[in-house]
Amino acid sequence: MHPRFYLPGLDEEGSGTLTGDEAAHLTRVLRLGVGDDIDVFDGAGRMFHARVEEAAGGRVRVRGLGPVSSAPEATVRVTLVAAVLKGDKMDEVVRDVTMMGAVAVQPVVAARSEVGLEAVARARRVDRWQRIAVSSTKQCGRATVPAVRPPMGLSGWVAAPGPDPVVVLLEPSGHASSRLRDVPHAAGVQLVVGPEGGWTAQEVEAFTAAGFHAVSVGGRTLRADAAPVVAMAALYEAWGGW
Amino acid sequence: MHPRFYLPGLDEEGSGTLTGDEAAHLTRVLRLGVGDDIDVFDGAGRMFHARVEEAAGGRVRVRGLGPVSSAPEATVRVTLVAAVLKGDKMDEVVRDVTMMGAVAVQPVVAARSEVGLEAVARARRVDRWQRIAVSSTKQCGRATVPAVRPPMGLSGWVAAPGPDPVVVLLEPSGHASSRLRDVPHAAGVQLVVGPEGGWTAQEVEAFTAAGFHAVSVGGRTLRADAAPVVAMAALYEAWGGW
Repeated sequence: MHPRFYLPGLDEEGSGTLTGDEAAHLTRVLRLGVGDDIDVFDGAGRMFHARVEEAAGGRVRVRGLGPVSSAPEATVRVTLVAAVLKGDKMDEVVRDVTMMGAVAVQPVVAARSEVGLEAVARARRVDRWQRIAVSSTKQCGRATVPAVRPPMGLSGWVAAPGPDPVVVLLEPSGHASSRLRDVPHAAGVQLVVGPEGGWTAQEVEAFTAAGFHAVSVGGRTLRADAAPVVAMAALYEAWGGW
Repeated sequence: MHPRFYLPGLDEEGSGTLTGDEAAHLTRVLRLGVGDDIDVFDGAGRMFHARVEEAAGGRVRVRGLGPVSSAPEATVRVTLVAAVLKGDKMDEVVRDVTMMGAVAVQPVVAARSEVGLEAVARARRVDRWQRIAVSSTKQCGRATVPAVRPPMGLSGWVAAPGPDPVVVLLEPSGHASSRLRDVPHAAGVQLVVGPEGGWTAQEVEAFTAAGFHAVSVGGRTLRADAAPVVAMAALYEAWGGW
C-alpha cells in the first residue's frame, strides 16, 4: 500500500499538484521525491495510483497511473449531527465517524454544550475538524472526505433540518419511542447525538414536535464521545447499510 | 444520583466496609464522611443506596438503605477476546467494552501484537485493566464489573476457547464467511478482535479449523482500538441483545 494524499483538484487521469500540508508531508515527513509512487484521492470518491514528477518550492506535481479501489462507501449515507463536546472530544468524534463512513458532520450547540458558537468560531475548530476528517479518511481507506459544516445552534437546525429523515439518540432513561430496526429505512439519514449532559426536556419536546424518530441503544450510559460510533454501527447493522 | 463505590463484600442489606482506593476516593477526593449518602455495588449485579456510618483509618463503614436499580445488563453475554494493543490502547478498549456491557475480557497475544505475555505480566497490566473496568462500570451505571482474565497466547486460547460460540472479526479484506445477523444467536458469545496489524493468514486458518464464525463490519478499515466497540454494537443490534 502506498502513502495516501488528499488532492481535491486531481484531473480525470489522477494527475495534479499537491500544495500546503500535503506537499510538506510528502517531502519533509515521508521524504519522498521524484519517481516515488503514492496514491491520491480527491475526497469525492476517486482514488488513483500516481507518481511524483516534480517536487520543488512547496509544490509536488504527480502523474496519475490508473484508478485504485478505495474502501467502499456505506450504503446508508449518514450525516452526523453532533452536539459540540468539551475540549478535544469532538476531534475524536470526527475522527471516528469518518472511519465509520459518515458523509457529513453538522456540529450543533445544544443547551448543555459547554462551548458556544462564538467560541467554536474563534478557535477555528471547523478547520481543525476538517483536517482531522482528511487524516481519518486516509487511515480508513476511503476516497470520500466527510464535509464538516459550520456549527449551528440546535434550535436553528431543528427548524430546518434538511431533507433526509432524522433519528435522535436519547439517553437510556429517555424512553425512546422506536428501535433503530423499526425506523423506516432510507438511503440517507441524519443522526443526532447529544452533549455530555444529555438533552434537556425542552430539546426532547422539540424533537418530538418536529417528527424526528427517537431511539436508544441499550441501557448503559454511553460516554458522549463514544455514542456516535455506537449509534452508527447499530444503524448500519439494523438497516443492512454497511 | 449519588457517587458510586465498588464494594465486592457488601452483605444482603447492602452494608459493608470500603477499604483501599475506594475508601480513599470517598474521604480524600470527594471529601465525604459520616452521614453522607452514596451508592454501593458488588460488581456481581447488586447495587444499594447506602449511608456512611464511620470513616477512619482508611476504612469506611456504610449501611445499606435499600436496593437501587442499576443499568440493565445486555441480554447477550459478550466475552471480548482482545489481542493486546500497543501502549495504552488496551486501556481504552477495556473502558469502552465495559461501557458497552461486556461480561469478561480475555486478553490474548497474537502474532502481530507488539507486546508479549511476559511484558504484560511484568507491567501488571491486568491489575490496571481491572481497575479501569471498575471505573467504567461506575460511569455507565452497571452493577456488574467484567472480569479481566489473565492474558494467554492466541493459539493456546484457540485450542480451548470455552463453551460459548466464537465470532471472529476479520479485516475488511478478510473475506468473512458470515454476516453477524446470520450467525446462530446464542445467550453468550466470545467475540475475538485482532491487533493493529490484523490477523496473520495462519491465525485465520486456525480460526477456520476451529469452526469459529468469521464476520466483518463494513469495508472501511477500523482502528484496532475502535473495532471492539463497533463489533459489539453491531452484534447487539443484529441479535436484539442490547
